[in-house]
Amino acid sequence: MNYKMVSKTVGRLLQAEALLLLLPMAVSIYFKENLLYVYGIVIALVLLAGSLLTLPKPKKRTIYAREGFAIVSLSWILMSFFGALPFVFSGAIPSFVDAFFETVSGFTTTGASILNSIETLPKSILFWRSFTHWIGGMGVIVFVLAILPQKDMQSMHILRAEVPGPTVGKLVSKTTVTARILYIIYGVLTVAEIIALLCCEMPLYDSVTTAFATAGTGGFSVKNASIAAYNNLGAEVVISLFMLLFGINFNLFYLLLIKQFKRVFKSEELWTYLAVIGVSVLLIIFNIYPMVETLGTALRQAGFQVISIITTTGFVTADFGQWPAMSQMVLVVLMFLGACAGSTGGGLKVGRMIILVKAAFRELRRAINPNRVKAIKLDGAVIEKDVVITTSTYFVIYMFIIGISALILTIDNFDFTTTVTAVVTCINNVGPGLAAVGPVENFADFSNFSKLVLSANMLIGRLEIFPIIILFMRSTWKKTS
Amino acid sequence: MNYKMVSKTVGRLLQAEALLLLLPMAVSIYFKENLLYVYGIVIALVLLAGSLLTLPKPKKRTIYAREGFAIVSLSWILMSFFGALPFVFSGAIPSFVDAFFETVSGFTTTGASILNSIETLPKSILFWRSFTHWIGGMGVIVFVLAILPQKDMQSMHILRAEVPGPTVGKLVSKTTVTARILYIIYGVLTVAEIIALLCCEMPLYDSVTTAFATAGTGGFSVKNASIAAYNNLGAEVVISLFMLLFGINFNLFYLLLIKQFKRVFKSEELWTYLAVIGVSVLLIIFNIYPMVETLGTALRQAGFQVISIITTTGFVTADFGQWPAMSQMVLVVLMFLGACAGSTGGGLKVGRMIILVKAAFRELRRAINPNRVKAIKLDGAVIEKDVVITTSTYFVIYMFIIGISALILTIDNFDFTTTVTAVVTCINNVGPGLAAVGPVENFADFSNFSKLVLSANMLIGRLEIFPIIILFMRSTWKKTS
Repeated sequence: MNYKMVSKTVGRLLQAEALLLLLPMAVSIYFKENLLYVYGIVIALVLLAGSLLTLPKPKKRTIYAREGFAIVSLSWILMSFFGALPFVFSGAIPSFVDAFFETVSGFTTTGASILNSIETLPKSILFWRSFTHWIGGMGVIVFVLAILPQKDMQSMHILRAEVPGPTVGKLVSKTTVTARILYIIYGVLTVAEIIALLCCEMPLYDSVTTAFATAGTGGFSVKNASIAAYNNLGAEVVISLFMLLFGINFNLFYLLLIKQFKRVFKSEELWTYLAVIGVSVLLIIFNIYPMVETLGTALRQAGFQVISIITTTGFVTADFGQWPAMSQMVLVVLMFLGACAGSTGGGLKVGRMIILVKAAFRELRRAINPNRVKAIKLDGAVIEKDVVITTSTYFVIYMFIIGISALILTIDNFDFTTTVTAVVTCINNVGPGLAAVGPVENFADFSNFSKLVLSANMLIGRLEIFPIIILFMRSTWKKTS
Repeated sequence: MNYKMVSKTVGRLLQAEALLLLLPMAVSIYFKENLLYVYGIVIALVLLAGSLLTLPKPKKRTIYAREGFAIVSLSWILMSFFGALPFVFSGAIPSFVDAFFETVSGFTTTGASILNSIETLPKSILFWRSFTHWIGGMGVIVFVLAILPQKDMQSMHILRAEVPGPTVGKLVSKTTVTARILYIIYGVLTVAEIIALLCCEMPLYDSVTTAFATAGTGGFSVKNASIAAYNNLGAEVVISLFMLLFGINFNLFYLLLIKQFKRVFKSEELWTYLAVIGVSVLLIIFNIYPMVETLGTALRQAGFQVISIITTTGFVTADFGQWPAMSQMVLVVLMFLGACAGSTGGGLKVGRMIILVKAAFRELRRAINPNRVKAIKLDGAVIEKDVVITTSTYFVIYMFIIGISALILTIDNFDFTTTVTAVVTCINNVGPGLAAVGPVENFADFSNFSKLVLSANMLIGRLEIFPIIILFMRSTWKKTS
């Protein structure tokens, strides 16, 4: 392990966080909140920590897979640690564990909250809360690549750990350039949403924070009642549309830009994603129609919630905890599915599911006739055996972690539904679950220990398992021979 | 597809079922129940159907994997169909769907029941109900192999579909001889349990039916309150011990017989199985101790329920639906885990889980250092890549089926816990679930449609997915080129 290089890179990332904290500080000045000293202290602390970490001068600048994982996981944990400080120091969230949970939930774009009353908090604090979604949404895919001074092959290692095999592809030859292109798309889409929301007569502050939460597919809102608070059909349509877009593989936007329309239209993941949304909306409309009485309301609620959950955003316009069992189960299944690979959404990802389903059918065909089995293909390209193993092992580990986490969470003695869906919604970075963690509830009642377990789940889900688990494996820290 | 050979073999199995029905008929004569005509009609019908199916004379006697799967799935479905008739004709279970559910639950050794009142039923009918467990326990592993006149290689195909890779091993060179050895062990252990229960002053009828349900790890009892009805500590210890034994890979008993003690002691699956039981019992004792007040009661209840659930038997001595959340979650996890491969127990099997866990760690090590990864070993032998793919794909399909089934089951609008645990307990062939399908509840309130879905789940779990799904795949029925 190249400790010095890890330390230095994590330090650089903390320094970047200090810069990012200037934005909420500016907001607090604008709203005359008298929180300048809070941001001042926090920025000073982050800068100090970052600078201390960058002190060691690495002899070798080369980093390998294990260093990549260590950098990713350590920086996410430390950024959440320091990102929690504005909540604590401002008194908005006095308990550090609560603030840490909220910040991890922000950076991982989960959107699960421990806040009972959101609207009473200072505006700059809520701005920072929403801004963490935007920072985390770019996340490992873009943020790390655009900033880290590492060789191309090694950043590909990180990409490979995050995106399932076949969709790993650099847009252009240099990874850092790829990252910057994705960055620009992300920024442009965010600005487009802000403008669209302003056109729907949403206030500027609300438009910006909502766009941050949409872009990262996070789900934090500045209103207690989430998007339902606005009762603004136009805004709901705009948000739905942008959630849908941020759930699509960003590579496809790049392909559109360079006019490779054919490749976009041939994307199996895109069509599966849209088809699943269509079928789910129809199922839920059919299921809640007797309850909401008009077809328009059924479409409005079903459409928004399906897109909000499959993209793992977690915005709420209807208390789906009151919906019939089938609609709730559809949403739970969508939580697992998640959005497209290479998007800002969480969950297992549609692309991974396609590979798993194809591998399943291949296995069934192999059982019937072992000698005549074709390889699995995605978008016309053959998927290698190792990718199938990696993908299905990923699924296995995912399910094991859910089982173990649910078991640990039972120390709080919540009912089965609450315990299971709390873990499911956190590891898939969605936000709301069912029962005591339903759409109109929050995570405040869990013990500190459980909040840390759920924080770990959010990080595991966001960083796609490997960085976090590898961080705790002995062999990661062995001396390189 | 060699239709004639499939038809002939299924016919032979139905003829065997007619013979097996003579036993409950004898019981009904002994208890002077006046049900002779019922068994007479059923046996005549089964014989007729069996004989009609054996009419076609196959030109070729060779069968391949697909024929093997078709034989296994069709005979289980038809045997359940005809096995349900005594319940219907005797008036014990008037609804055919209910009777079919109960019979599938019997043959698959699940033990989930739709009966609200068990003790009011004729003794021969309850005898048949428990006897289906004993027949189903031998199941595909032994029953098919011991009876089918097929070549060794082809019966291995069936074995391979049932037991995860590394533990597939014939005891002796001929498969039919292997089957008979397992058969004898099964019979001797059953008789031993009957004698032991008699020594604990359990009546003969109860001892025999309880031993049948234990041997098959089924869980049907002739008492409404299951094993709790006897309040007999001695019997509980005997049943626990035998549940534990029937959950062990039968190959190990054979190895003991031929004095290969070292190989038994080296079995990773056995030690993992015992360790998991130990840890689970301790966790639950610790968890329910404040509730039951004495350590003895805690040990008695925890020990029995843990063994009952991990072996997927499903006998009940305590209403674990009233236990704290942690104890309930431990039991749900054990439902998934199941007993050892090559035993009569259901679930995913401990052996499969060991492979999955090892594959997971191998994948993590591979992520850190792609060039220095060793193959996975079980009991010292290397596990091939294809076995890892098969095992993890099996897990993926399993989870997908649970998700899809739970989604379908929501049409009955039960709560999340009931819906999910109903599917989990059925596919793992356990019996009781939580909430409305808890240990003191039953499956009577589900709609007919849902009962058929759950029946399919029980068959899928018992036959380990492939035979049932392959039955519905078009390519299975294509003409062999």
